[in-house]
Amino acid sequence: MSSIGPPTGMRDWLPQDTLLRQRLMETISSVYRLYGYLPIDTPAMEDLTVLLGKGGGENEKLLFKILKRGEKLAQAKDAELADYGLRYDLTVPLARFVASNQGKLPKVFRRYHIAPVWRADRPQKGRFREFYQCDIDVVGGASWAYEVEIITATERVLKELNLGQYRFRLSHKRLLPLLLRGFGVAPEVIGPLAIVLDKLDKLSLGQLCDEIRKTLSASPAISKKVEAFVRDADPIRKVEGASAPYEFFDKILHEFKNTSVYADLENVHNDLMGILGSVVQMNEHSSIVFDPILVRGMDYYTGPIFEAVVVGYPSAILGGGRYDDLIGTFAGKKIPAVGCSLGFERILALLQERESGAAVTATSPVLLINEGVNAVILQQQAEQLRNEGLCIETNLDTDDVGRQLKSAETAGILWAIKHFDAASSSLTVRYLPERRDLTLSLVEFKTCLGNKNQA
Amino acid sequence: MSSIGPPTGMRDWLPQDTLLRQRLMETISSVYRLYGYLPIDTPAMEDLTVLLGKGGGENEKLLFKILKRGEKLAQAKDAELADYGLRYDLTVPLARFVASNQGKLPKVFRRYHIAPVWRADRPQKGRFREFYQCDIDVVGGASWAYEVEIITATERVLKELNLGQYRFRLSHKRLLPLLLRGFGVAPEVIGPLAIVLDKLDKLSLGQLCDEIRKTLSASPAISKKVEAFVRDADPIRKVEGASAPYEFFDKILHEFKNTSVYADLENVHNDLMGILGSVVQMNEHSSIVFDPILVRGMDYYTGPIFEAVVVGYPSAILGGGRYDDLIGTFAGKKIPAVGCSLGFERILALLQERESGAAVTATSPVLLINEGVNAVILQQQAEQLRNEGLCIETNLDTDDVGRQLKSAETAGILWAIKHFDAASSSLTVRYLPERRDLTLSLVEFKTCLGNKNQA
Repeated sequence: MSSIGPPTGMRDWLPQDTLLRQRLMETISSVYRLYGYLPIDTPAMEDLTVLLGKGGGENEKLLFKILKRGEKLAQAKDAELADYGLRYDLTVPLARFVASNQGKLPKVFRRYHIAPVWRADRPQKGRFREFYQCDIDVVGGASWAYEVEIITATERVLKELNLGQYRFRLSHKRLLPLLLRGFGVAPEVIGPLAIVLDKLDKLSLGQLCDEIRKTLSASPAISKKVEAFVRDADPIRKVEGASAPYEFFDKILHEFKNTSVYADLENVHNDLMGILGSVVQMNEHSSIVFDPILVRGMDYYTGPIFEAVVVGYPSAILGGGRYDDLIGTFAGKKIPAVGCSLGFERILALLQERESGAAVTATSPVLLINEGVNAVILQQQAEQLRNEGLCIETNLDTDDVGRQLKSAETAGILWAIKHFDAASSSLTVRYLPERRDLTLSLVEFKTCLGNKNQA
Repeated sequence: MSSIGPPTGMRDWLPQDTLLRQRLMETISSVYRLYGYLPIDTPAMEDLTVLLGKGGGENEKLLFKILKRGEKLAQAKDAELADYGLRYDLTVPLARFVASNQGKLPKVFRRYHIAPVWRADRPQKGRFREFYQCDIDVVGGASWAYEVEIITATERVLKELNLGQYRFRLSHKRLLPLLLRGFGVAPEVIGPLAIVLDKLDKLSLGQLCDEIRKTLSASPAISKKVEAFVRDADPIRKVEGASAPYEFFDKILHEFKNTSVYADLENVHNDLMGILGSVVQMNEHSSIVFDPILVRGMDYYTGPIFEAVVVGYPSAILGGGRYDDLIGTFAGKKIPAVGCSLGFERILALLQERESGAAVTATSPVLLINEGVNAVILQQQAEQLRNEGLCIETNLDTDDVGRQLKSAETAGILWAIKHFDAASSSLTVRYLPERRDLTLSLVEFKTCLGNKNQA
């Protein structure tokens, strides 16, 4: 039995990883709280009628279903062995939550929700069957000023997390399909072609153009137009806050002046350039770029869409957009919404990679060495130190100092107290990584901990 | 569809309740962290072989089972439709966690775990099908000094939570059965009689003695002894830190001097009086009492047991004890353990009752009124205030001030900013509960928020 583990694709969280996860949650929460967003939670499971047929797409196939219980199970026919399912995202539960709590929520409802979801997916590196999602949404706000707010708040989160250089890409759900239609791409090819264009971060421009030509092999003239567009657009995706996006979009509008897509394009232009300009006005350090080739996977988006990438990593660390048709599903009316989903697990992995050793020891307690004094006296000393705000661990089973220090080192503990003199408030401590002993006042020791040992 | 809700017995968490729950978690965590305890987490589900037959007792019947998926389901026979189940407590997952992570954990492993569990119980007032548990355990520590530590830490939590006067009751799993055996109660009656004695908090002494007589109707002489014991013991349960417990236990030992239970009783005496004395030495304000009639439900306890009650409330808000035979189940060896389970939902309900209005508004953002200025300028002002650490909500859809104020009041917002002059750092604000306008400097306003609006 000693090789027993958690279920396939699910993880145990050891203390240092749990602490890092909590720290990430707190950083994210504290920033969105500045913008008036508040946390909610919903049950892990929902009725199957809630979970199925609501835009979850492929995820609906990955449901963990809950077996009916007792008499209900005995009476169930094969097709209805289950009545509940574990949530596979936090968006469908939000729609249900909004319907269930009508009247208790403000007209414009800003919320965040950080919680686990479950998908019976094939596990692989970085993909789990239980993982955290982190969703931030404004429900009930129709103006694109809410996009500006969510983007500004989210850029502040990325800055706080100190993830390194990132790019925040903005486009519109309808832009790329409109352009492709304008170039003459047949309606049934627009979907497959968008999937090809979505590979822009993973392929070279040359490779991508090869794939475009393959997909449009029946119409080389159209393929040429699309290739030219991609070559023009690619540098625009990497320019922050300059005039290039405006010039590029003006050129597009000009090109399509007398076509059937013009009116639609003009609306998209006004929204996007409005958002882009406002975000930069709000935050002169914004890393927002206009990305005319941006594709976001979810079908339910209806307006502006965005994502962020950390430079040097291929996959987006967050994505979002406006989705005006989903939240009202259960409430039976139209409710506009815009939201952002942070890739919680991906960001956590980035933090783990960057911090490695530092995070492991940053929040360890201090060991008060048991040198064989009476257990009560030892614990009383520990209490005095705790009253000073120190996190103190003592060993109550053994007075073998060597074993205590070895075990402390294994657990990532940095400091051990060898002697504490309460009368003079002085300590003899050992800094374990260097096996160096110091005699310090309590105040000096607290300063050491503040520098090297506290979160 | 508008009446749709969460699954039976499960709850949506609105922002103010979510914030209160998070605050409770943080208070509990911060105290145990002082004692060197660290957080862990485990998956919501475990293999059914882990969950079944491991001392969960009645809870095993309340399992939410997960239906097998895809091919595995198609091939499943009736009896094995499910392979996983949602955890019904945090103790069985801890035992599995310890086995799965051997080698990564220190010899004495102090951890806490605050997380939801699921039981398909009949829902009723205060009993839910999804609820939080909060478990604190020391794994690998055999000395009763760990009981002293857990009790001291937990009393510090209760003090921090400011729940009012409480009593922390201590006894030993074997004490009451030994005494009843000593009085001559037949082995098969000891269990039912313990269940009767457990009602001591809910019945008057007279009512309880009636029930004792009924249960022991076949042996009136024994009943008399038990009744006398209960009458003697009852006042002891309410005496803190005095010599009464020692005198009472001495009297018991004397009474059983030449019987078969004496040697056992003496061991129990030494443990309990050692713990009692040390806890009071650690914390002169301790509310610990010796409760010779204490019964704790779980079968897996093997040594000292304890619980705490808030004076004026009938049910315990926490319970715990030593359980040396459970944690090693999966690891295949004996691993001593002592733990405490806080009644998270019960404590939350107490806090909600006490704080009511205060908690609801304590963490609300401040409304920056939209009086019709350009949305970007409004949002820039909001950003400046956020840079000062204020949580600012603005309405980006409407400039109808009356509607903004009404919606803010509904959401429990206390303060609205009518005008902010960045150059002079001065504000005109309205205190919504009194509809009173004030002109303040930013520093003065922050002080107001610190007093009345911040957690």
